[in-house]
Amino acid sequence: MLSRPPLDRESFEARLRAIGAARYHDRHPFHALLHGGQASADQVRAWVINRWYYQSRIPMKDAAFMSRVTDPALRRAWRSRIEDHDGGLDEGGGLRRWLRLAEAVGLDPGYVASGAGVMPATRFAVDAYVRFVRDMPLLDAVASSLTEMFAPKIHAERIEGLLQHYDFADETALSYFRTRLAEAPRDVAFGLRHVLDHADTAEKQDAAADALTFKTDVLWAQLDALWSGYVEPGRIPPGAWQPGEGLR
Amino acid sequence: MLSRPPLDRESFEARLRAIGAARYHDRHPFHALLHGGQASADQVRAWVINRWYYQSRIPMKDAAFMSRVTDPALRRAWRSRIEDHDGGLDEGGGLRRWLRLAEAVGLDPGYVASGAGVMPATRFAVDAYVRFVRDMPLLDAVASSLTEMFAPKIHAERIEGLLQHYDFADETALSYFRTRLAEAPRDVAFGLRHVLDHADTAEKQDAAADALTFKTDVLWAQLDALWSGYVEPGRIPPGAWQPGEGLR
Repeated sequence: MLSRPPLDRESFEARLRAIGAARYHDRHPFHALLHGGQASADQVRAWVINRWYYQSRIPMKDAAFMSRVTDPALRRAWRSRIEDHDGGLDEGGGLRRWLRLAEAVGLDPGYVASGAGVMPATRFAVDAYVRFVRDMPLLDAVASSLTEMFAPKIHAERIEGLLQHYDFADETALSYFRTRLAEAPRDVAFGLRHVLDHADTAEKQDAAADALTFKTDVLWAQLDALWSGYVEPGRIPPGAWQPGEGLR
Repeated sequence: MLSRPPLDRESFEARLRAIGAARYHDRHPFHALLHGGQASADQVRAWVINRWYYQSRIPMKDAAFMSRVTDPALRRAWRSRIEDHDGGLDEGGGLRRWLRLAEAVGLDPGYVASGAGVMPATRFAVDAYVRFVRDMPLLDAVASSLTEMFAPKIHAERIEGLLQHYDFADETALSYFRTRLAEAPRDVAFGLRHVLDHADTAEKQDAAADALTFKTDVLWAQLDALWSGYVEPGRIPPGAWQPGEGLR
């Protein structure tokens, strides 16, 4: 069998971007509900609680990646992702900023940080992502991070929509998103260049595209779970957060 | 069966320190050879080449640890270990300092950094350590890092012995050890406190002591391999560094 040639750099990047256009979770109705101001306070809280679990696993995912990287230069370039999320010993970092959002929507940040009330479907999706990055080829692991390419748009929409529609929303509550607007493009530039540089065969390009598709699945599944539990039919699974719990 | 009570804090710490006194690699004859100035230039080079492999895996080991830590505070406290070894994007870090030592002893730092010429026995021992930290209970993983308790003495002896006996030895060449003299005590204080705090049953104390014993084995096995290959009988295994290779 003749081996296919790889796409050229521009076409391959377009292929990756098309995955976001078709499948990123800004197309999910929960996103529209939220930034359009139609989500109830409890639906916002359910989102904050479940999304915490995703946030909390990102530094572990990035550490799992670094634990497999033998090139010190690549580890050095990747390390800022952990710093961005975990922050310093006493302050800063996306996790602390997410807990400020939790507080703003009326939740006890300690409750949210405990991970209590997270839906099992959220855990399954997020844990699958961490395992993917731990187990799959490094190129695929990097490619799976490229949903960040599509994140600035969703963060900007969230800031605008939440500020417009919700009393809780102010710059402190939304500082997570504001900060990510600055951080994500740097990570994307590095990750995208790495993938474009290293996916030098059609097979590697397919694997990278599959990895990015997988990651959009991870994000989409989280919003599907939220919709199922807290919108329609609104059947909260056993053990998941019940409105009224974990309030501050 | 009645469960044994755990040792009190002081006795347990004494038990851990006794492991170092009995088994740390400062008791290995290769250490005496080196800091006593009896090692040949090629024996020093073999040590620098093989020890590089250990150094190069430390940040991966620490990332593997962090990838399993769900407590952000513990990750934040641990992260400096990676920073200490990898350094910044452009400068600093134990790995770069080790390559300065490599250069000082006449080796091409690029050759050393490539990992070429590392003895298989070195790889097996070091890889076993990384796997241990990735797979074992977190308490055991922390305990395995506590060989750092015994490191300041060996670093100080190395600095003194190398400066005294070898022309190549100056502060630049030995900056790795000088820096570790400052870094290690901070890591030890944190790690030891963590182990003393969390090993609250006799079983956990046994496991922590076993983990520290395991780690002394990892270090000892590396010096045994060096001795076998480059001292006595001096039978260099297939593929390992041959004197004359990788010089600058």
